[in-house]
Amino acid sequence: MKTTRADPQPADFTDVRATNLAVVLRHLRANGPSSRASIAASTGLNKATVSSLTGHLIEQRLLRETGLSGNRIGRPGTALALDGSAYAAIGLQVAADRLTALALDFAGDQLLLWHRALALPGDPAGAAGRSVSAIAALAQRAASRVRQQGRQVLGITVAVPGLVEEGGTVRLSPPLGWSDLDLRGLLSGSLRQPDLDIAVANQASLAALAELRHNGDPRLDLTYVSGASGVEAGIVADGRLLHGARGFTGQIGRFTLGPAGAPTLADLAGIEPLVRRALPGSDPESHTDLAPAVEEVAIRARTGDPATLAALRDTGGHLGQGLALLANLVNPEIIVLGDHYAALAEWILPAAEAELARNTLAPAAGGARLTTSALGLHAAALGGAVSHLDRIDTGSLPARG
Amino acid sequence: MKTTRADPQPADFTDVRATNLAVVLRHLRANGPSSRASIAASTGLNKATVSSLTGHLIEQRLLRETGLSGNRIGRPGTALALDGSAYAAIGLQVAADRLTALALDFAGDQLLLWHRALALPGDPAGAAGRSVSAIAALAQRAASRVRQQGRQVLGITVAVPGLVEEGGTVRLSPPLGWSDLDLRGLLSGSLRQPDLDIAVANQASLAALAELRHNGDPRLDLTYVSGASGVEAGIVADGRLLHGARGFTGQIGRFTLGPAGAPTLADLAGIEPLVRRALPGSDPESHTDLAPAVEEVAIRARTGDPATLAALRDTGGHLGQGLALLANLVNPEIIVLGDHYAALAEWILPAAEAELARNTLAPAAGGARLTTSALGLHAAALGGAVSHLDRIDTGSLPARG
Repeated sequence: MKTTRADPQPADFTDVRATNLAVVLRHLRANGPSSRASIAASTGLNKATVSSLTGHLIEQRLLRETGLSGNRIGRPGTALALDGSAYAAIGLQVAADRLTALALDFAGDQLLLWHRALALPGDPAGAAGRSVSAIAALAQRAASRVRQQGRQVLGITVAVPGLVEEGGTVRLSPPLGWSDLDLRGLLSGSLRQPDLDIAVANQASLAALAELRHNGDPRLDLTYVSGASGVEAGIVADGRLLHGARGFTGQIGRFTLGPAGAPTLADLAGIEPLVRRALPGSDPESHTDLAPAVEEVAIRARTGDPATLAALRDTGGHLGQGLALLANLVNPEIIVLGDHYAALAEWILPAAEAELARNTLAPAAGGARLTTSALGLHAAALGGAVSHLDRIDTGSLPARG
Repeated sequence: MKTTRADPQPADFTDVRATNLAVVLRHLRANGPSSRASIAASTGLNKATVSSLTGHLIEQRLLRETGLSGNRIGRPGTALALDGSAYAAIGLQVAADRLTALALDFAGDQLLLWHRALALPGDPAGAAGRSVSAIAALAQRAASRVRQQGRQVLGITVAVPGLVEEGGTVRLSPPLGWSDLDLRGLLSGSLRQPDLDIAVANQASLAALAELRHNGDPRLDLTYVSGASGVEAGIVADGRLLHGARGFTGQIGRFTLGPAGAPTLADLAGIEPLVRRALPGSDPESHTDLAPAVEEVAIRARTGDPATLAALRDTGGHLGQGLALLANLVNPEIIVLGDHYAALAEWILPAAEAELARNTLAPAAGGARLTTSALGLHAAALGGAVSHLDRIDTGSLPARG
């Protein structure tokens, strides 16, 4: 998502207009239907400018007029609202056990949420080929569905665990068994729609974007911690996703501090090792879906099974140690535990909070609050769709389809 | 340095002008003296705009006309250059063993560099009081000196190790023995110059700003690692300093991953533990200046002393493990080893590079290059001064003095 590095670019009136379009869209996103007068009063833009901007947005079918004036400021008048009817944004999430597709309209309402079983990794080379076909087929079906509803597709973003380069090549994905896979190129070739905006990005980073929008504060320092395919973090600093030099951020599962061969954070605090320990005899890698095993762990914990509770405390404690490294380094305000961690948070959180506070130099973990995701197992798919809405919300309007 | 969080602000022509002022200033900063025609040709701004912008900057005494046309593009003409004569920016660096003051003119030339011995920590409460007086006195002297030269002071930024809040309160500085010290408030009260811009910030973050400017690429992902007062990192992501929610970033010295009481990265890879190990019988905390002890370690290493070389390898290896945690999380392009690490880099770097690569998930450490600072022991003081030039370079021009 980062463009090439260059000297700062001169600004002109186009930039002013994009900034002001963004101000109007974000105002409506945050406050719901509002009259032109109340938009002007709240944003500081003058009424003529608001009329011009909203006229443009209505013409682009991003706003619509509604009879309801949702705001009491100014004279009652026609209210404007985000228009969900013309566009759709699609997110796909690839995990070792399943594929998820999700579509949002421009107003942020969910248009579809589909799951497909996916068995990975088997034969890595063959599995990648079969998986890419399955991803392309699901993307194609989702795009067809929203087009049947008369919508233009703003773009498709695929969420993948592991190291994803800016151009959409999966450099290394241990959970999927992939390396050096040009997923974006393969999907573009398969979908054969040159105008379609296709992107591939790290799943925890996309989930962090979804959490940021869910939270509503656009300038938050928020870290999302994924507990599904490995342990990864998506880091938002001052409202911007941390990309790093090549897009390889948030790999907290690889944390280790000790001699060669010392266990990593993923070994100590991952969901699969937890399941293996809490459900002896079970092999989580053989599950086509990890969720039932996680639910079984929760059931045993609820009955007070001492071995299960000890395993959960241990996982939470190690997770807290890893999160303390993260808190010492990037000082988030909110750390959101996602995916399967969320389902087990009741038993993981206390130990995680204690170790986080104990291992952070700043008092009270530097102010970091440890919370639980409310977005379920498809936060990254949601983030993939959200990334396309975010772009429009910066004032970069869609090309006319 | 972060302002309060709020909705995005509407843009107007003032923002366009600030952006374009920034384009002109950064062009001259990067390319040296240039004619108006060559500025227009290189930046894409039209000639009338360049004339208006440069006229404004000459009036503000940020640019001056020079006889030399330093550029061959377009007709030969009067060249414009950054004007160093009217302003000065001051950085102060507080370490456990000394105070440093440094001033730059607006062209980036060094106006003064002073060192003062400082014995810390002794009696923490009393020492803080004495240190604040010493800092205020040095700041006052530096400001007086540059004012005698007819310059307006753009601001003073004080670099401190540890946790510094945005408002300038030192929340915790283990190397200085300070906690909850409103350093900015105390200095403002002592200097009694209400118009003077005084700031306090973390020393590694400021050193990272100095390295960024030294490097010349304004959008780099660069991490500076301080090896003087503790072990800290200053993290620049995509050209922006990582602040975190409260300004508490980069505390890699606190890294640990293990049971309570496990050694931290500062214990394993700090300069003081290294000196203690390489020079048995020496107590680095009793040094008023750590530099001679570090030089003694270097001399022993040069003679091939096996125990010294082993201690250096050990320090480098642990440092590399800590840097791998950082590389896994923020994926820097350049990691700069600064302060005393730079003086010992010849012996520390090989082990650090090996452990960095071994412990990073991405191949070849995610592209991170480990380098040595060329800015010496006063990089943070330089960064303090640079922070004020950076602000002007964004188009935020100084108030008229």
